Amino acid sequence: MTPGALRFAAEDLMIEYADRIDSDRLEDWLDLFTEDAVYQVMPRENFDRNLPASLWLCTNKNQIRDRVLSLRNANEYNLHYDRHLISNIRIRPGAGGILGLEANYAVFQTDLEGRSRLFSVGRYRDEVREAGGALLISKKLIIVDSFSVPTLLATPL
Amino acid sequence: MTPGALRFAAEDLMIEYADRIDSDRLEDWLDLFTEDAVYQVMPRENFDRNLPASLWLCTNKNQIRDRVLSLRNANEYNLHYDRHLISNIRIRPGAGGILGLEANYAVFQTDLEGRSRLFSVGRYRDEVREAGGALLISKKLIIVDSFSVPTLLATPL
Amino acid sequence: MTPGALRFAAEDLMIEYADRIDSDRLEDWLDLFTEDAVYQVMPRENFDRNLPASLWLCTNKNQIRDRVLSLRNANEYNLHYDRHLISNIRIRPGAGGILGLEANYAVFQTDLEGRSRLFSVGRYRDEVREAGGALLISKKLIIVDSFSVPTLLATPL
Repeated sequence: MTPGALRFAAEDLMIEYADRIDSDRLEDWLDLFTEDAVYQVMPRENFDRNLPASLWLCTNKNQIRDRVLSLRNANEYNLHYDRHLISNIRIRPGAGGILGLEANYAVFQTDLEGRSRLFSVGRYRDEVREAGGALLISKKLIIVDSFSVPTLLATPL
Repeated sequence: MTPGALRFAAEDLMIEYADRIDSDRLEDWLDLFTEDAVYQVMPRENFDRNLPASLWLCTNKNQIRDRVLSLRNANEYNLHYDRHLISNIRIRPGAGGILGLEANYAVFQTDLEGRSRLFSVGRYRDEVREAGGALLISKKLIIVDSFSVPTLLATPL
Repeated sequence: MTPGALRFAAEDLMIEYADRIDSDRLEDWLDLFTEDAVYQVMPRENFDRNLPASLWLCTNKNQIRDRVLSLRNANEYNLHYDRHLISNIRIRPGAGGILGLEANYAVFQTDLEGRSRLFSVGRYRDEVREAGGALLISKKLIIVDSFSVPTLLATPL
């Protein structure tokens, strides 16, 4: 891909990622990951201090799929709506066909009464690979600024 | 237009749209619509369930213009500032020269004491047409997550 | 630069600007400014009414550097995290090698308990110059909607 095409593809991957969560199509959302994908949510303080403790860690796609299944059982009624705003998207050159992809996000949640609130802000530090002309996520590392939210892990971020 | 030029034009249309609302240039904002433009605000729940009820529906540009006039009379003093953040912008290929254009938005309002708050989050699902080298909005469908706000319709979203 | 390359360079400058603040690398953040750079924070009302009063004004890079030094002394402990979302980025053609660069921003702050809140929304109205293939900021004018925040100037916006 040309640099411009790669940039657009990276932005589109982020947009698809968000849209599939926001529209509650989590099974389609899984399709954006490679089979060996890591999905990890980590508080910012831990990341900055190189502490390994995660809030959520899946080390392959089957684990992510299991997580989606358990969310489907736990959230029998969808009690909120998610809305992602993703900005400050940047590509980092990588080695071995792996690209770094970073972005800032804000997720807003709205309850069934239509009241919206800031739910989580943070940063994505991802790794992506080109496969068959498309980009897939091989690592999704989510550095969350916000971690005082009891329902933090009710949906993917 | 090339795909890249079209993408930039679509982003610029969204940016102009937001800027003309945020800077209270609603008469200039009207210029972004075609004569037969539909402007519709709909709660997300209604959209998801295919319920037709809208919070605001104008079926041509004259109706949008009337709405701006009535806002001008109602808001004799501009009691707040708007600020749009629009992200996750995506083009959908369409037929007959019509393009789909989607984006997520967050609108923040600030009162005269300088206190800012989240006002509305949601999604644009628009249709645009090329006319004279520029893109114009032929349909502005605003799916609002937030609908518990009494002053929701005091300005366009 | 081609229009596309310039657009990407402008976006990247905004992203770098935000990232260096958010990751508390304020000394590296200084490198994004020209030696004669103006850094100015102004309430929106003053800007709209052409009133000159600023909340923060540095008229060259040494003054910005002094400000960073005093922030380093004042904030012995970093009591919060910043997170910028920058969107609606637009380039304005300028004269004499100076380009206008505008964008909307939202800054979210998170305290040490992991509670995030909207801190400031507003608009950048910058001037940038190309120097050695990169863009540098010669004027950073920040029009803040939000000005009721006591700790407003504890970090750059």
